[in-house]
This record gives sequence, C-alpha cells and structure tokens, in this order.
Amino acid sequence: MKTIRVIQYGLGPIGCNTALAALKKEGVKLVGAIDIAPDKVGKDLGEVLGLPERLGVTVSSDAPEVFRKAKAHVALHTTRSFFKDVYDQLELAARSGVSVVSSTEELLLPELRNPDLAKKLDRLAKKHGSTILGTGVNPGFVMDTLALVLSGVCTEVRCVKIVRRVDASTRRMPLQRKVGAGMKPEEFRRLVKEGKLGHIGLLESMYLVAKGLGWDLTRHRENIEPVLAEEPQQTRFFSVAVGEVAGIKHTCCGFCDDRQVIDLDLRMYVGAKDPLDSIEIEGVPPLTLTLPGGVAGDVATVATLVNGIPRVLESEPGLKTMLDLPIPRAFRAV
Amino acid sequence: MKTIRVIQYGLGPIGCNTALAALKKEGVKLVGAIDIAPDKVGKDLGEVLGLPERLGVTVSSDAPEVFRKAKAHVALHTTRSFFKDVYDQLELAARSGVSVVSSTEELLLPELRNPDLAKKLDRLAKKHGSTILGTGVNPGFVMDTLALVLSGVCTEVRCVKIVRRVDASTRRMPLQRKVGAGMKPEEFRRLVKEGKLGHIGLLESMYLVAKGLGWDLTRHRENIEPVLAEEPQQTRFFSVAVGEVAGIKHTCCGFCDDRQVIDLDLRMYVGAKDPLDSIEIEGVPPLTLTLPGGVAGDVATVATLVNGIPRVLESEPGLKTMLDLPIPRAFRAV
Repeated sequence: MKTIRVIQYGLGPIGCNTALAALKKEGVKLVGAIDIAPDKVGKDLGEVLGLPERLGVTVSSDAPEVFRKAKAHVALHTTRSFFKDVYDQLELAARSGVSVVSSTEELLLPELRNPDLAKKLDRLAKKHGSTILGTGVNPGFVMDTLALVLSGVCTEVRCVKIVRRVDASTRRMPLQRKVGAGMKPEEFRRLVKEGKLGHIGLLESMYLVAKGLGWDLTRHRENIEPVLAEEPQQTRFFSVAVGEVAGIKHTCCGFCDDRQVIDLDLRMYVGAKDPLDSIEIEGVPPLTLTLPGGVAGDVATVATLVNGIPRVLESEPGLKTMLDLPIPRAFRAV
Repeated sequence: MKTIRVIQYGLGPIGCNTALAALKKEGVKLVGAIDIAPDKVGKDLGEVLGLPERLGVTVSSDAPEVFRKAKAHVALHTTRSFFKDVYDQLELAARSGVSVVSSTEELLLPELRNPDLAKKLDRLAKKHGSTILGTGVNPGFVMDTLALVLSGVCTEVRCVKIVRRVDASTRRMPLQRKVGAGMKPEEFRRLVKEGKLGHIGLLESMYLVAKGLGWDLTRHRENIEPVLAEEPQQTRFFSVAVGEVAGIKHTCCGFCDDRQVIDLDLRMYVGAKDPLDSIEIEGVPPLTLTLPGGVAGDVATVATLVNGIPRVLESEPGLKTMLDLPIPRAFRAV
C-alpha cells in the first residue's frame, strides 16, 4: 500500500475536520497545509487542528511553494463556494499535477456557470495529470448523486422529486446564520434580492441530475423564501422569536418544455420537525427512498471529500464530475 | 448520436423484457438475438417478443454466427446464473470485441468462486476491446451497490446491515417456485442440502461490499431456512397451506476476525407483509436508508441491464464490476 500524500487546502471548520478525518486513514499522510488566516499561518498543523501532537507540517499562505515542495498526490480543497473564486487555486493544483477533491459547491458542475473556465481547467488538468472533482453531501450526494444512482433501476423516469429537510439547530453556527436564522423577514428578502442568501449549488445539483439522465432542460424556476418561526426557537448560539426567520426554503424546478421533470425542495431551519432526505422517482418502477433523520451535513461533507481520494487517484486526468467517477464509497472504512 | 447495436443473448422472461426495454431506447437497435429454445429459433424476434411487427432479426441458436455478422457494440446477456455455465458465451463475446451487460448472478464478483476463469476472461476482454459487467437488482443493486454508495458519506463504517423483504406473490411463477413456495419443509431442507435452493449471488453481494470497503473478510456464515406459512396463501399460480413453505430466508454474515461487519438478510416469500429494502450503516454518521415497498425485482433487473449499456461502452475494456464503473443511472430515461 503506497502512502498517499495529501495537502489540506483551506483550514476553516470543514477543512480542519477534513484534515482530521484524512489523518485517521491508514496510508494517508498530510504533507502540506494552506490557509491565509494570520492566526494559523506559521503554526504547526497539529496545533491548528487542536491535536496534542505536532505533525511536522507548517501552515503556509504560500500555496505555490507548498505545491512545489510537498510532492503531494491529492489536495483536499475547502476554501470557497464559487468556481471563479477558486479557479486560480485549482489551476495551481492542476499545473502541479496534483489531483483535487473540492468542497467548492459550484465545482459539482463547473460548466454550468463558467463553461470557458471549466474547459481551460480540464485542458490543464489533462496536460499535467491531475484529476479534479467537486463533491460534498449537498451538493454532491443527497440531492443529485444518490437520486441518479437510484434511477439506475428504472426503465423510465418521468420526474425526480427530492426533499431535504434539515434542522439547522443541530448544525454549526455559520450554517445557522447562512440560512438566515434570527433575521427579520425583510432583511432576508433583501439579501435574497442581492443574491447573498440561498443554498449555493442547488442549481448545480439539478443540472447534474438532468445531465446524468440525458435531459436538456428548457427552463428552470428557482425560489428562495424565508421559513418563519411559528414558535420561539433556541439554538446553542442564539434565539429566534415567533415571526422571525427560522431558516430557508430553497426550491428548484426543472422543465423539459412544459413538463416538470425535476423538483428539488431544500428546507433548512431551526426547529425543523422530522428532518429527512427523500427521493421520489415517478417512473417505471416508481420508487421512494427515505433517509429518516437525513444525512448529517458537516460530517458527511468531510466524508465525501476524504472518500474521494481514491476515486480521483484511480481516474483519468481532467476536470470530472460525480457522473464520471466510479461509485462513491467509504475509503479505508475502519 | 451514434446508433448502439445490441445483441439480445437469451430470450427467457427476463431476456424478452430486456429486449423490449432496449427497443424503447432511442438510438438503440437490436441486431441479433440468440436462444436455444426450439420454439424460438428461426422466428423473427418481434414475434418471440409478442410484438405486432417484425423486427427483421431472426432468433438463432448459432451464437458465433450472430456475433460474426451482427457488428454489435453490446450484448445484453440473460442466460444462466453461474459464471462457469456462461463462460464460453462470455468468451465468445469478448473475442468478438463485443461488450456485455449480464444478469448472470455470479458475474457480480466472478473472481470469488472462479478466479482463474475471471483472469482469463479479463485478459481476453482487454485484448479484444470488450467490457464485461455483471449487474442486476439483487445481486447488483439493493444489497451491494446502493449500500456502498451510501457509505460514501461516512468517515467510519463499523457494520453494514441490509434487509430485503419481498412478497413473492407479486412476482412471476418461476421466482415463486425458486423460493420454495408450496413445498413441504422437508423437501425444502433436502434441496438446500443438495445446493439446489438459495438465492444465487447473495455471497457475491457480501463480498462485493467487503471489497468496496477494503475489508478482508476472515470468514462468513451463510444460512438458508424456509419461511413457513402461518396462514393460507393464494398466489396467482397456486396456493400454500399453513405449515407449508411460503418462501425463503437466506442470510449471510461477514466477519473481520470476531467482529461481524456485514449482515445481509433476504426474505422472499408469498404473503410477506410490508415488503421493503433497508440499509443500515453503523458508523459515522450512522445512517438508515429505506425503500418502502422495495425495488420491484423483475422490471428493475431489466432496467439495470439496459442502463448498463452506456456504462460498459464508455469504460476501459476488461472484466469489470460495479466498483469499477461510473455511477449507475437511467439511460435515455424518457
């Protein structure tokens, strides 16, 4: 078993947990760590991760130097949500011949909003022998990949309906804020108008499902609304009064001509009863899949990143999506 | 869109339905049909499939000639359950450079019982540019692939437990007979002893899960028992008295040393209440997935075969498993 040399690129909460999960895998070695936060740069990665031991890897803000020196096989990339914002980081990895598993939401289907950048990155990745994948739990799993896999037992698919209902009070503080919990409804609506609120990647999920099923969507409808608290809510971090925003309802519908063929319904709010993920396929045979309680967001995102390591390493170089790689599965599971 | 030329190899009930499903896919053309049944050989495939129109394809028992003349890309292979019994058929396809999607249960993990034959077939397939895959709904999906995919969101997996409970009275006659419905318990037990009863492929499912998770099982325990009718059962085809066999309970447990890590529990009997498929992962995070009603066996098997066409065509040549190919999904779904 060859040691897999990994760079952790980004040391926010998800990045730190990803590094910790990677460290637990036999045969995986962290050989580089990149972040720009002044309170992290220059420290040993072990210290930043809150471990009792030093890891002998110093957190650096000089990404090119880390890639040059680390002799890495893979970078676990957890910096930002938009493809354009991380393009330079990914290009650096590609040019270094280092494969990438990234939590960048738009990277689930980078061609959707940035086809030219996607083509450029794909060319560079192929040239230098790097495989680049965007994944995660949502986008990346419950509202796209899992539904596609389920469709594998259908001879016909007329409509795919996916519901994800998350009780945000069980999630970390930034997520609770990100869904608008505690805001006034007017503030929520203003931020939606400004494009500053909404689940990044939902549209990518929908278009990945469509692409996987060979559907050319003729149009889509997207809607972002506040879910208002009907009773007072108290999270570990703050409280929400009745009538204030408890969270978000973000929906995407995809159409082939006048026929609705995809319906994604994502609700994340504090106090959500009966959280769950469910997938319904109207087709032959008709199918319903449920994950009672839903797939826990943060730990599952970390898992998809670490589990992506062998998938990118065994694949052809290029900018890939979940459609291109072998089935996801746990990597060195125990 | 290039036309995909398909040979239907085997025209039993599953084979006929597979051919019918393939015919419905845009861009797929049936260019050959193989069967040995005297009442089918020499007839037009359309007639054998019960279609009002002729298809211009004559059912032949001369497989080498069909492969020589059909200029096919893929064979949909639905003949027998055991790898050894179909080896020559698959070798013919491999040597002809024709890819194969097969319902042969043991082909889910051919190396398990016949590693030498698997190596030989893999070599030939690679040499001649053929990709060969064994798939289906069970084995092939609910008790293996789907569980592996689900594990993709786990950082740790301690145990995978899968239950499939099928009401055999909804299934076709041969399946009802195959699970022992209507037998006396003694007869059932005698047939189990003679190796003539049991769900073919369950052990393959278990070892595919283990392989996918990187587990070397140190041992396994397999058990086949009759489920006895507790009240009289009436299927479309026959009746089962109280105390007679209603069907089968077939279980497989896999161990790493003394720790049970996989538990497959398959029950197929007439009158089964609340049929379902369920997957439970004891791990981080813990997960439960349910498919209320379960995935309908026959139509879903047909779907996995037809949906496998693009997967084998886009993959590298060789003898593959569900672990090697991109995620399954519906092919030209509407």
